[in-house]
Amino acid sequence: MSSIFTKIVNREIPAYIVAEDENYLAFLDIFPLVKGHVLVIPKVEVDNIFDLEDELLQGLHLFAKRIAKAQSKVIPCIRIGMAVIGLEVPHAHIHLVPLNTMGDIDFRKEKLKLSAEELAKIASEIAAAL
Amino acid sequence: MSSIFTKIVNREIPAYIVAEDENYLAFLDIFPLVKGHVLVIPKVEVDNIFDLEDELLQGLHLFAKRIAKAQSKVIPCIRIGMAVIGLEVPHAHIHLVPLNTMGDIDFRKEKLKLSAEELAKIASEIAAAL
Repeated sequence: MSSIFTKIVNREIPAYIVAEDENYLAFLDIFPLVKGHVLVIPKVEVDNIFDLEDELLQGLHLFAKRIAKAQSKVIPCIRIGMAVIGLEVPHAHIHLVPLNTMGDIDFRKEKLKLSAEELAKIASEIAAAL
Repeated sequence: MSSIFTKIVNREIPAYIVAEDENYLAFLDIFPLVKGHVLVIPKVEVDNIFDLEDELLQGLHLFAKRIAKAQSKVIPCIRIGMAVIGLEVPHAHIHLVPLNTMGDIDFRKEKLKLSAEELAKIASEIAAAL
C-alpha cells in the first residue's frame, strides 16, 4: 500500500503544496510544530533517508535548502531547523521548522491547530518567496 | 575568534573523532542525547547550514550518510535521526542521533553523562564500522 506521502504525490489526498519538481515535493505539515513547518520528500517511496542513493539524497538536500531560504523570508524566526526522525510515516521526509527556541523541535509536544485558510496562506507565501 | 568546532578541527581542543576527510569531520557530542550521538561538520566555519554552497552541502550529507550507516551497525536503535538546530554553536553541524523513541530528539532534555572511557570506546566502535 502506498504511503500517505505517495498519495500526496499522486494527488490522491490533498496537501498544501509549496514546491515540486520531477523528484521532490515540499508541502506543509498539517500537524505543525510551529507556523510554517514544511515537509520535504523524495517522490520515490524509500523509508529510511540514508537508504536513498547518493544522487537523490544530494538533490533532496539542495531542494530543501531552496525551501528553507524561502521560509526564512516569510516566517518570523531566528533560522530554519531541520529534523529527520522517521519513526512514524515510512517514507523519508525532512522537517523544515522555523525556530525561535530550542523547544520548537520536540515532536512530543502538542501540535498547532491552524485553519485551512491559514495553511493555504502560509503555503502560498512560502511558494511566492522561492 | 574560532568556533569551538574549528578548534576541534585544528586540534586545539580534543574530541572523540569518528571520521575525517579533507572537508568534513565527525566526532561525538560530549553532551549526548543518547549513546552514540555524533556531530558532523564542514571544516569551513559557516554558521547556517543553508548558507553552505551547494557542492559542500551535498558532500556534507553524503559524509553524514556514511557515518549514520556505521552508527546503525554498532549502536542499538531503530534508526538514526538527524537534526540541525544551530541556536548554540555558530558553526553548522548535523546531529546524528540513534533513535528508539520520538523523545530521543529533544534538545532541552538532560544530557547523558558518559565517562571518557565510554566515549572513546563508542567513537572507536563507530569508526571501525565505517
